[in-house]
Amino acid sequence: MKRIKIKDLLASGEIGAKVTVKGWVRTFRSNRFIALNDGSTINNIQAVVDFENTDEDLLKRLTTSAAVSIDGTVVESQGKGQRIEITVDTLEILGDADPDEYPLQPKKHSLEFLREKAHLRPRTQTMSAVYRVRNALAYGIHKFFNEKGFMYMHTPIITGSDAEGAGEMFKVTNVDLKNPPLTEEGEIDFKEDFFGKAVNLSVSGQLEAEVGAMSMGEVYTFGPTFRAENSNTTRHLAEFWMIEPEMAFYDLDDNMDLAEEMIKYLIDFAMEQCPDDLAFLDQRYAQEQKSKPQNERSDLGLLDRLKFVSDNNFERLTYTEAIDVLKRSKPFKKGKFKYPVDWGIDLQSEHERYLVEKEFKKPVILTDYPKDIKSFYMKQNDDGKTVRAMDVLFPGIGEIIGGSQREDSLEKLTTRMDEMGVPHEELWWYLELRKFGTAPHSGFGLGFERIVLFVSGMSNIRDVIPFPRAPKSADF
Amino acid sequence: MKRIKIKDLLASGEIGAKVTVKGWVRTFRSNRFIALNDGSTINNIQAVVDFENTDEDLLKRLTTSAAVSIDGTVVESQGKGQRIEITVDTLEILGDADPDEYPLQPKKHSLEFLREKAHLRPRTQTMSAVYRVRNALAYGIHKFFNEKGFMYMHTPIITGSDAEGAGEMFKVTNVDLKNPPLTEEGEIDFKEDFFGKAVNLSVSGQLEAEVGAMSMGEVYTFGPTFRAENSNTTRHLAEFWMIEPEMAFYDLDDNMDLAEEMIKYLIDFAMEQCPDDLAFLDQRYAQEQKSKPQNERSDLGLLDRLKFVSDNNFERLTYTEAIDVLKRSKPFKKGKFKYPVDWGIDLQSEHERYLVEKEFKKPVILTDYPKDIKSFYMKQNDDGKTVRAMDVLFPGIGEIIGGSQREDSLEKLTTRMDEMGVPHEELWWYLELRKFGTAPHSGFGLGFERIVLFVSGMSNIRDVIPFPRAPKSADF
Repeated sequence: MKRIKIKDLLASGEIGAKVTVKGWVRTFRSNRFIALNDGSTINNIQAVVDFENTDEDLLKRLTTSAAVSIDGTVVESQGKGQRIEITVDTLEILGDADPDEYPLQPKKHSLEFLREKAHLRPRTQTMSAVYRVRNALAYGIHKFFNEKGFMYMHTPIITGSDAEGAGEMFKVTNVDLKNPPLTEEGEIDFKEDFFGKAVNLSVSGQLEAEVGAMSMGEVYTFGPTFRAENSNTTRHLAEFWMIEPEMAFYDLDDNMDLAEEMIKYLIDFAMEQCPDDLAFLDQRYAQEQKSKPQNERSDLGLLDRLKFVSDNNFERLTYTEAIDVLKRSKPFKKGKFKYPVDWGIDLQSEHERYLVEKEFKKPVILTDYPKDIKSFYMKQNDDGKTVRAMDVLFPGIGEIIGGSQREDSLEKLTTRMDEMGVPHEELWWYLELRKFGTAPHSGFGLGFERIVLFVSGMSNIRDVIPFPRAPKSADF
Repeated sequence: MKRIKIKDLLASGEIGAKVTVKGWVRTFRSNRFIALNDGSTINNIQAVVDFENTDEDLLKRLTTSAAVSIDGTVVESQGKGQRIEITVDTLEILGDADPDEYPLQPKKHSLEFLREKAHLRPRTQTMSAVYRVRNALAYGIHKFFNEKGFMYMHTPIITGSDAEGAGEMFKVTNVDLKNPPLTEEGEIDFKEDFFGKAVNLSVSGQLEAEVGAMSMGEVYTFGPTFRAENSNTTRHLAEFWMIEPEMAFYDLDDNMDLAEEMIKYLIDFAMEQCPDDLAFLDQRYAQEQKSKPQNERSDLGLLDRLKFVSDNNFERLTYTEAIDVLKRSKPFKKGKFKYPVDWGIDLQSEHERYLVEKEFKKPVILTDYPKDIKSFYMKQNDDGKTVRAMDVLFPGIGEIIGGSQREDSLEKLTTRMDEMGVPHEELWWYLELRKFGTAPHSGFGLGFERIVLFVSGMSNIRDVIPFPRAPKSADF
């Protein structure tokens, strides 16, 4: 008999039907009730064993995480919250899970402990819910952009360019580290290395995505990016996934419209695709909030917060206006901010959180930052001081998107590169995009794990990616 | 006025409508006819300039690849093969392209030359068609698997494991290559490196994807993989994208069914999404065939070949049967094969091509290979000699998919690892998948660029990825 997935069975199983289900035992209680899960949904199917007519040795092997195959009959459930269950006709143990050795017994494990068991943690309710939400968001990204006619573009992971300056890079090499080839001057001779030059792992696909925009019109990337920064925080990973759309003929307003539309689409899509997972994560979030001191608790529950973001327009204001707001704020006047507030500073987390969580109480898009705190490729405003940058700030997350209109004037771009010490040679091709058929264009980057954090309500970024990579940590 | 994309304009532009289009000039002829393209489609819109009332200096700037913005009126076209064109009301040059310097004039450039201009080549018809086909195939993969309830899983790119043995690996490091930290024994002290141990770029996400299968049921990866092999061929890249589905409760037959269904879905999806691009590539393919010697030409045109694969069942036979077929073949009897044919050999390209192109004249799935030429993780058959492997062989491409049912017995797996010298320590988590709730499961890997090659009819893999990475080649 062909196996039916538990998700499909729960949705449409007809009373009296004979079915085969396969999965892992979540719990087995009263020597009678198996809660079986196969990963297709957070919900289990209850399979009822006729224990009086079942071999006792078999019953003993129905332990948490044992894999079983069950042929049974769909019946109406007597239990609460479940329409149907199955009565077991035959049961086969596919794989045992010795309860004396299996580390994830049905009790609450800390997320820290689960990280050490990354190969088993998707068998827990919390992690499987997070992974399904992650999948929905990833698919939502592809759907959103493809339905708009954007082209998915694979930008290179191994890159000879380190000019973007977005962060410290990992070296990629094939040389014998103990006896590297040397030049006559005693430097590493990268001509002898695999690619014939020094290469790194990409910190961003943006510059190459601009190639796509300036020919295909509208493109997006969705790929891994890397930062060799020694920061052990709940917000940073050494390896993470980024989405970077780049669009010809978009100015900064178009760029903001697209970013806002995308985020709302993703949130709506996740709520539509994963209602059960998000209901579970909403409860989890509420419990987590209860354990926090009153003044650190979120005003809104997880689902309420998602609906709020989806239903409300983001607040848009310039960096200069934001500095004014901060200077008029109570915490500033009372000297409560740790860091100074002055035009020209890079806003600190405390400032961003004030704007988002206290002043506007919704996502905020700040634009037109001082040019000296932003990258060389951002379009310069006529004021000579600011660039057409945008940062989207989210409650609890901080910066979730960073983007800009790109400098499309060859002259302004090269001048700015000179001022900032960015060499031209490596970026000859990037400059040629301005030399041959340049046009206004814009783009932004979304850190994928940041949006998964926001939608799942998890608090540590290592719990929203299957195998996190961080300083001193590359297990599995 | 809001810009309309050329694809939408060609599909639904109404006579008399006022529109704004933006794009790059493909050609400008008779001082009057602009062929404008914006990357949304392979087709250009013709914009007709009233040259008698247009500034001559402006007309001179309408050169190939200049970026322009045109406000115009939709009119019926007098030209062949186009329903509509636009008459130009106002025209603005957004960015010039000096014809003395712009390298891609409207003539036939060699694909080799275009590779050196990877930042401009998507402005050509051929490359933009290939990229749109690539996008359709990528989106098709996500659609196919999501609609089936598979979960997209991001497996790690940086990995401490080098056990899979699929190929030579690139090292990833943060040490000072000139003065690496050393242990007392004079070895590189990876404890001092970023991750606290030696790490590499992943050659496959399979082992981690099995973690997903053994909890979420059905998962797939789609990410970059790396091989540090010094092979400069038309079929290999140092950085390429792989799709690796892994499924709990699937045996080898289920695995083959899924692989065949997926490929047919992808081909149908590309034909449905990219009819104009494929019509163009079909013509290109036909011309390329004409330039080949008679005996190397393909029997079928590109589109015919796609339809043929989509409409016919793949031939399935065992490796052992394939050896028999080869031994009965004319080229074998006439001594025409370069390499020997004997049970136990790894089939060479000439053998695979004979089976696919001469004997069966359709895609072939070979199964149950000798265990000694396959990986340690493949499920052993009861004969003690073969494993439940499968390779899908395609005309002109060779192996496009490799997969297997995975060994789910802890004992058999560890014995095989010992025989093949695969250390247990690194793979403790992989072994635990067999220790706790093991179950039959299967999976396969599809090299993404291989399917793009097949569907686009291109012959060099470097022409189906935007920025190819190969020995001594990591530009852009």
